[in-house]
Amino acid sequence: MRMYDIIMKKRNGGELSDEEIKFFVDGYTAGDIRDYQAAALMMAVYFQKMTERETFALTMAMAKSGEMLNLDMIKGIKVDKHSTGGVGDKTSLALAPMVAACGIPVAKMSGRGLGHTGGTIDKLESFPGFSTALSTDRFIENVNNIGISIIGQTAELAPADKKLYALRDVTATVDNMSLIASSIMSKKLAAGADAIVLDVKTGSGAFMKTEEDAFLLAGEMVKIGKNAGKYTAAVVSDMDQPLGFAVGNALEVKEAIDTLKGNGPEDFEELCFTLGSLMLVAGGVAANDNDAKLMLRRVISDGSALKKLAEFVRAQGGDERAVYDTELLPKADIVRPVISDRSGYISHI
Amino acid sequence: MRMYDIIMKKRNGGELSDEEIKFFVDGYTAGDIRDYQAAALMMAVYFQKMTERETFALTMAMAKSGEMLNLDMIKGIKVDKHSTGGVGDKTSLALAPMVAACGIPVAKMSGRGLGHTGGTIDKLESFPGFSTALSTDRFIENVNNIGISIIGQTAELAPADKKLYALRDVTATVDNMSLIASSIMSKKLAAGADAIVLDVKTGSGAFMKTEEDAFLLAGEMVKIGKNAGKYTAAVVSDMDQPLGFAVGNALEVKEAIDTLKGNGPEDFEELCFTLGSLMLVAGGVAANDNDAKLMLRRVISDGSALKKLAEFVRAQGGDERAVYDTELLPKADIVRPVISDRSGYISHI
Repeated sequence: MRMYDIIMKKRNGGELSDEEIKFFVDGYTAGDIRDYQAAALMMAVYFQKMTERETFALTMAMAKSGEMLNLDMIKGIKVDKHSTGGVGDKTSLALAPMVAACGIPVAKMSGRGLGHTGGTIDKLESFPGFSTALSTDRFIENVNNIGISIIGQTAELAPADKKLYALRDVTATVDNMSLIASSIMSKKLAAGADAIVLDVKTGSGAFMKTEEDAFLLAGEMVKIGKNAGKYTAAVVSDMDQPLGFAVGNALEVKEAIDTLKGNGPEDFEELCFTLGSLMLVAGGVAANDNDAKLMLRRVISDGSALKKLAEFVRAQGGDERAVYDTELLPKADIVRPVISDRSGYISHI
Repeated sequence: MRMYDIIMKKRNGGELSDEEIKFFVDGYTAGDIRDYQAAALMMAVYFQKMTERETFALTMAMAKSGEMLNLDMIKGIKVDKHSTGGVGDKTSLALAPMVAACGIPVAKMSGRGLGHTGGTIDKLESFPGFSTALSTDRFIENVNNIGISIIGQTAELAPADKKLYALRDVTATVDNMSLIASSIMSKKLAAGADAIVLDVKTGSGAFMKTEEDAFLLAGEMVKIGKNAGKYTAAVVSDMDQPLGFAVGNALEVKEAIDTLKGNGPEDFEELCFTLGSLMLVAGGVAANDNDAKLMLRRVISDGSALKKLAEFVRAQGGDERAVYDTELLPKADIVRPVISDRSGYISHI
């Protein structure tokens, strides 16, 4: 097999076989296939697109390019949540304790900021002392003990995706639905969850600028998940304005805490309930959307979701007192409120 | 200016400015722009094509990426000839002495074999002792003294094209008319001729498999030449079977010599007369095609073309006796004749 022939085949509109895609991904990860051939292939894919089968093969080859996390030691159905990211998106901060309090084991790998938005890990580090650098054993132990752990994404997870994304980023070959979907899903599949709930943001503050594109991407990812035999659901949510009111790591942590106390902004609360319901149903702890929403309301009203956050922060070395007294979170030297207009929307698919 | 933006612009179907093309060519030649970005751009060009203006800008930027040969020291109108190459294409071997004998200064840079066909230089080296490694001064001196010199193409000539062609060759981005045309013409323009006559081969033994493609390529090259202010003409000639009967370096030299003696194969002779006529008219030594053909017939019948070949071979260190006694040329150990069917054609554009 020759990389030249693979580029030529895709350039001419052919469908690559699973073997050809694996040959490319493995060879590129190992450094046997050079950047310039990979770049030519990515641009050919941009123009000729990939079929559902090709997209799935690419995702699986990238997922298997490094360590595939085995979460079998964790009891229950592991439901992962992923957001394509947006301004003020602190969803995981509130959602993870909520669903954990409902009995869904949260064993999550999160990333740092990409582009103009902070990542979940950046935000969690607002808790003094909090660390996401846990060993896999400790990670699994924490989930089994308190039902929740969030760690940083390791370099060993889908290294092919990491290398290929860096190349696409400088060769104007990022915006292809198959490539975006396979990049996200390869990491999710390598991270070992049983079910995946996706939050695809759309609008001026998101990667997908139009609703149409967001639905396309959501569809691509759901197809990949289903092809991989995982329960997968996606939500398309508005990012034409920030989610909630708070933007900035510590401010977002505070807003997530407010939400766990039942005082969150309406749009953010709605998104957490929508995603949370899908997760509870996927995890088999709620029979339907209505039951799931009732459970989520209960863990907020009885304080158990907030308590779960405190347990989680303490278990990862953070100062849990900040959960109850947000004055202990870091503050900016200059504080100037900027209030946004609220007219968001959420659509299921 | 950023290479990323240039790739993105072309990917999205935009027309690159002269400045953007020059930025790419200069940066890539200098090594500031990396192979993977160049490969992505080449694949984007494959799909989005280039306009006449872009193709010309690319050609000039590549021509100017290295040494631009100055042939002003040579008297008369310098007419260069280029063939896209084919099986048995020994045209320069006969044509150069023919037009030189008619008074057209031949100051030619030739290449070695590309793909399955030998180059003019490989063939000339069949003359024992013949060398194409002449200094520019000696090259010009020879043309002024005997009217003809052929040297090897130096690395200093259009280095951008050399680097870019090597990249295109391994990234499946060779077959785009604008890129092929600019690659050929950048070298021709850097080689300093006043007028250019092109022989575009078409058929199973040629780079252009169809007549349609050959005419497209010929058209692209003529447009570039005219935009550069050079008299430029092209001929499309058949390569569905070998040109003449001989294939192989020494055998082809022998067939060229036979042609200069008036005993050449009909198709080869016709091609030499067609191209030669264009060169004589371009060089201003014949008023029209008819006059040109008469002049070419005369230099064959009176032996002056053959004599010119002998002078040329001697001037570059070769054994001129081989011109008169082809038994002195190298011979293969095993000789087995393979006779081809003859039904070629030649079209002007």
